[in-house]
Amino acid sequence: MYKVAIIGASGYTGAQLVQLVQQHPSLTLAGTYVSENSADAGKNIGALHGNLAHVDATLTPISNEILVALTSQVDFIFLATPHEASHDWMPTLSSGRAKVLDLSGAFRLKDTAVFEQFYGFAHTQKNSLDVSVYGLAEWHEDKIANASVIAVPGCYPTASLTALKPLAENGLLDANVRPVINAVSGVSGAGRKASLTTSFFEVSLHAYGVLGHRHTPEIEAYLGTPVIFTPHLGNFKRGILATITVKLAPNVSQSQLDAVYQDAYNGKPIVRLRDSFPKIDDVAHTPFVDLHWKLDEASGYAVVTAAIDNVMKGAASQAIQCLNIMTKQPVETGLVL
Amino acid sequence: MYKVAIIGASGYTGAQLVQLVQQHPSLTLAGTYVSENSADAGKNIGALHGNLAHVDATLTPISNEILVALTSQVDFIFLATPHEASHDWMPTLSSGRAKVLDLSGAFRLKDTAVFEQFYGFAHTQKNSLDVSVYGLAEWHEDKIANASVIAVPGCYPTASLTALKPLAENGLLDANVRPVINAVSGVSGAGRKASLTTSFFEVSLHAYGVLGHRHTPEIEAYLGTPVIFTPHLGNFKRGILATITVKLAPNVSQSQLDAVYQDAYNGKPIVRLRDSFPKIDDVAHTPFVDLHWKLDEASGYAVVTAAIDNVMKGAASQAIQCLNIMTKQPVETGLVL
Amino acid sequence: MYKVAIIGASGYTGAQLVQLVQQHPSLTLAGTYVSENSADAGKNIGALHGNLAHVDATLTPISNEILVALTSQVDFIFLATPHEASHDWMPTLSSGRAKVLDLSGAFRLKDTAVFEQFYGFAHTQKNSLDVSVYGLAEWHEDKIANASVIAVPGCYPTASLTALKPLAENGLLDANVRPVINAVSGVSGAGRKASLTTSFFEVSLHAYGVLGHRHTPEIEAYLGTPVIFTPHLGNFKRGILATITVKLAPNVSQSQLDAVYQDAYNGKPIVRLRDSFPKIDDVAHTPFVDLHWKLDEASGYAVVTAAIDNVMKGAASQAIQCLNIMTKQPVETGLVL
Amino acid sequence: MYKVAIIGASGYTGAQLVQLVQQHPSLTLAGTYVSENSADAGKNIGALHGNLAHVDATLTPISNEILVALTSQVDFIFLATPHEASHDWMPTLSSGRAKVLDLSGAFRLKDTAVFEQFYGFAHTQKNSLDVSVYGLAEWHEDKIANASVIAVPGCYPTASLTALKPLAENGLLDANVRPVINAVSGVSGAGRKASLTTSFFEVSLHAYGVLGHRHTPEIEAYLGTPVIFTPHLGNFKRGILATITVKLAPNVSQSQLDAVYQDAYNGKPIVRLRDSFPKIDDVAHTPFVDLHWKLDEASGYAVVTAAIDNVMKGAASQAIQCLNIMTKQPVETGLVL
Repeated sequence: MYKVAIIGASGYTGAQLVQLVQQHPSLTLAGTYVSENSADAGKNIGALHGNLAHVDATLTPISNEILVALTSQVDFIFLATPHEASHDWMPTLSSGRAKVLDLSGAFRLKDTAVFEQFYGFAHTQKNSLDVSVYGLAEWHEDKIANASVIAVPGCYPTASLTALKPLAENGLLDANVRPVINAVSGVSGAGRKASLTTSFFEVSLHAYGVLGHRHTPEIEAYLGTPVIFTPHLGNFKRGILATITVKLAPNVSQSQLDAVYQDAYNGKPIVRLRDSFPKIDDVAHTPFVDLHWKLDEASGYAVVTAAIDNVMKGAASQAIQCLNIMTKQPVETGLVL
Repeated sequence: MYKVAIIGASGYTGAQLVQLVQQHPSLTLAGTYVSENSADAGKNIGALHGNLAHVDATLTPISNEILVALTSQVDFIFLATPHEASHDWMPTLSSGRAKVLDLSGAFRLKDTAVFEQFYGFAHTQKNSLDVSVYGLAEWHEDKIANASVIAVPGCYPTASLTALKPLAENGLLDANVRPVINAVSGVSGAGRKASLTTSFFEVSLHAYGVLGHRHTPEIEAYLGTPVIFTPHLGNFKRGILATITVKLAPNVSQSQLDAVYQDAYNGKPIVRLRDSFPKIDDVAHTPFVDLHWKLDEASGYAVVTAAIDNVMKGAASQAIQCLNIMTKQPVETGLVL
Repeated sequence: MYKVAIIGASGYTGAQLVQLVQQHPSLTLAGTYVSENSADAGKNIGALHGNLAHVDATLTPISNEILVALTSQVDFIFLATPHEASHDWMPTLSSGRAKVLDLSGAFRLKDTAVFEQFYGFAHTQKNSLDVSVYGLAEWHEDKIANASVIAVPGCYPTASLTALKPLAENGLLDANVRPVINAVSGVSGAGRKASLTTSFFEVSLHAYGVLGHRHTPEIEAYLGTPVIFTPHLGNFKRGILATITVKLAPNVSQSQLDAVYQDAYNGKPIVRLRDSFPKIDDVAHTPFVDLHWKLDEASGYAVVTAAIDNVMKGAASQAIQCLNIMTKQPVETGLVL
Repeated sequence: MYKVAIIGASGYTGAQLVQLVQQHPSLTLAGTYVSENSADAGKNIGALHGNLAHVDATLTPISNEILVALTSQVDFIFLATPHEASHDWMPTLSSGRAKVLDLSGAFRLKDTAVFEQFYGFAHTQKNSLDVSVYGLAEWHEDKIANASVIAVPGCYPTASLTALKPLAENGLLDANVRPVINAVSGVSGAGRKASLTTSFFEVSLHAYGVLGHRHTPEIEAYLGTPVIFTPHLGNFKRGILATITVKLAPNVSQSQLDAVYQDAYNGKPIVRLRDSFPKIDDVAHTPFVDLHWKLDEASGYAVVTAAIDNVMKGAASQAIQCLNIMTKQPVETGLVL
């Protein structure tokens, strides 16, 4: 059994991690932490997340002493923390035997100038950034297996890259026309906090972060080509549907396209190649990415849609996939029951 | 044309009043006000409420000078303000020719001890309280017609009293068994503010204010008998459905019950006696109260359900009904188009 | 007062038309009709649509005699009927003094080969098709004013064309990159009928009609350039949000783009140029189209979003706009109150 | 490992059973069946229920031969079938070594006159009815352990009885005032089928089955006292919230009430006694019943709310609980992970 600590357990991703660790056959929950001044310190996690009312896990305020102690006391540390906290704590947390899985955006972008532009503060943890591995589980398995610091991908990039990488890696994209990614996320993507924007009455489908969202450079960095990415807030709790329109290189056929996806995801149980365009609820509360695609051979345009649960494959369950890879277990262990 | 000012125009009720005043054939909007320190001061109302993007109405910060000026400059003042503000300002606002329609709870309970228990502060405006009239439009028409201060009823009491008063006024209730009122409200009932409770992810049907909600004494005061009232928060934006279970006096028949409702609401166009149990969406965005009922003659228990839009009949459109009565216009003027 | 008949009044569009005719100052409802064998024949419309419970309008089964009679008895006939019915009845209905506003797709496509491909039956009403005018109210005002048969545009084309025509008409689109239209529609778009697809439990955001929806040729015909259009079903009742990504011609600036939209919609009260990306609920239950756009000058890509209520501007209220134009009334009469 | 067959696997309850059997450590899925003429025959279950897209389970049309064969080939047969089918097939199905868990209403009411009144057909399987055991897992454990036929309780009765039995069994209910049960169910309760009533646009909170729902006699039979039960349809997919108002016997205190619930559910891991009134989403996708209560000592009225997932504790997971009891495993095996 591996010992696991979760820092930032009060949020939606943290609570999901608690649930996944509970149901995982080789993980044991060693501690759940919240920020030092959190109003939730001392509460049981079930007081915040009613679905976990049967779970015995106290939210302990984090401290520098605890950060240091965890590096030798546990095997894995999950950070479901603000970007700044992950950034500042990483050198300490990664200094011992514990491996760190960071679900914030602090270590996803290797280019610190781009990072500063999109995250609003300078990146000063160059060493941690150098060793961190981008945890896109289906594509970076070898590197993940040997990493000590994992930057778990963002929710939109996970959906977008799973759909687009088979095309990019096989040279199927027309170089002159950018892929257009339209994605709709459930409200959990905004995190657990009081805000007028995510107030029930105010939520209604709309675009945001247009032509400037911080997941754009993340997608571009790991795809290797520029894209147009437009996120939307939808009136549902969990899930992302990404609808991606691409112009393909000349003369690609539907059967070639099919083969590319089948090759890419053969033996990858978390990616489900579907017979029809997936719904959000097909993947809600699951670890899966569902993909379906269609090509208009006459024009060379294709549409691919990818559905994920943003709290699961877009965050918590992808972190567990990485842990499974790091511990040489089947990638779906504790996820597909 | 009557001149109207709306104080507290930034909230859901205030915005609804703006829309209703705009569409009313004999009302003109003289001013829209927000609290002195509101972050919304100076904005156009459409910046807060996208549905009003075409309306030209600036949110002006209220001040004591404006309060005084309004009493002579306009004919009607709507207060969609916190209880405390309505309480404190009423003597000033009701000192001139303007009539005041208060949508807060400040002047609904005549018993100041009960008021203090449920609202948390002492009522010190005895004179205003004495002259205020409870604006339950279908039941207090004569008093409303001559009032200078209207306490517009709460949303839950409006639904509950419309359903129960025909029974109580006709002596049909069993005196030994309390009416049980279960009501579910849309999230707009909680007002426009950032709050974890009304955050989209957190909203899911549940009871609140059990055996202690401040609308209980309001219902009891205007019904004349104690009730058990259990409010719930539902996952929708607008509307209240109140399901009311009563034990009737011995030997009441279904046809007697039908007659009592028909008599009570004959000539009352805002109350619709339906052929089946109404849905929330039958009344959302409308001024109507929809009623339907059924009696089990064997046991003497009956179930009545009442559906309203809490922002409309539960607040704004009932205030307009009162104004229509005060100006001798048909009660549905500007409401049923 | 103009006399109006509505054929197909039992559906969502028909019921919306009834409500709009009721509130229009110069229209009177002369009759509401359903198909000859409809199970709803003889019912009051309020029995089907609870929001209209106060309306006195019986659903009369249509017959050939009635069709003929209507052409001389009323001024305007609204067809909220299946494509086949509109197609078959049009010669009869348009043979008298009554003008016809058809909300089906029967007369939108002038190219009968394309029509047959996308609608599945041959178009045999060449004369009616020749005289019919596409009722995109903000763009075809002159033709609408003199038309006897209006093909009211589809919901998706209305949103898409309102967003794209200012760009196309001003030559701002890059000719080598197709506009990408992603749109999400509420469930009312599927019509009022029992279907597993639109059953509450089954509805969850997903793409459909990918690279083959019949609104694609409609958009292309009235835009004058090919597009990639991907519709989605969303988990809400009313509204469409279209998110449109375009590559602009070289060197277009944000201020040029702004000017183009302002010029296009100056004096058009139904189109609201917004300061931020609109939400579905900003336009639900309203006749408006809300537009907002943003350009990335570096890449030349721009994103425009358009929000409409599919039952209103996407169907019923646009039909009323056309009627207002045909009767020389301000276009927003009876719509913006 | 126990072999399990599921008849009626195409519906929501059937699909949930498939998922629960998959994740159960001591169950193996031997077959999934649909009705003989089902349009879904031959499909994989994932084609109907996208969340199960990774599951390999073909929907086989049932036949008399299969019914007979199953009785010797499997250990447990789950019937997620219409009442009539369960009624007709039970003698055959229960004639071998297989034990039968029936999720229909066919064997819940021992009084065949009442059964006929509420189910609309005569009960002719007297022997099966005599041996069947009502599978309310927390209350009938001993009988369930030795049963060969389980009548899995209805969804509303499960929520209602879990809340009320501690009061009734301890003589705390006032005999002269009926408990009032108001419950709201998600749309999955209506089953997987095309219907205008459960069409997305039509669903909006309303009461139905008032003073005549077939779950009323089921609740009364197993509670031992008459109740007033009013079900509602809510605009969500899964879950039931039952809000129950009772008048207690004289002089019951809050601490007595607390003790009664704690005693009743001590050592019952599926019932969670909560610190606050539960939300639907606290239990959605879980096997739990969440309870909370409050007493007004002055009046003697108390309010109890019970939340369950109707597809889980209201159907599938309660059936698994029964199976766990029948196989001497901890009741939460395969349910609480």
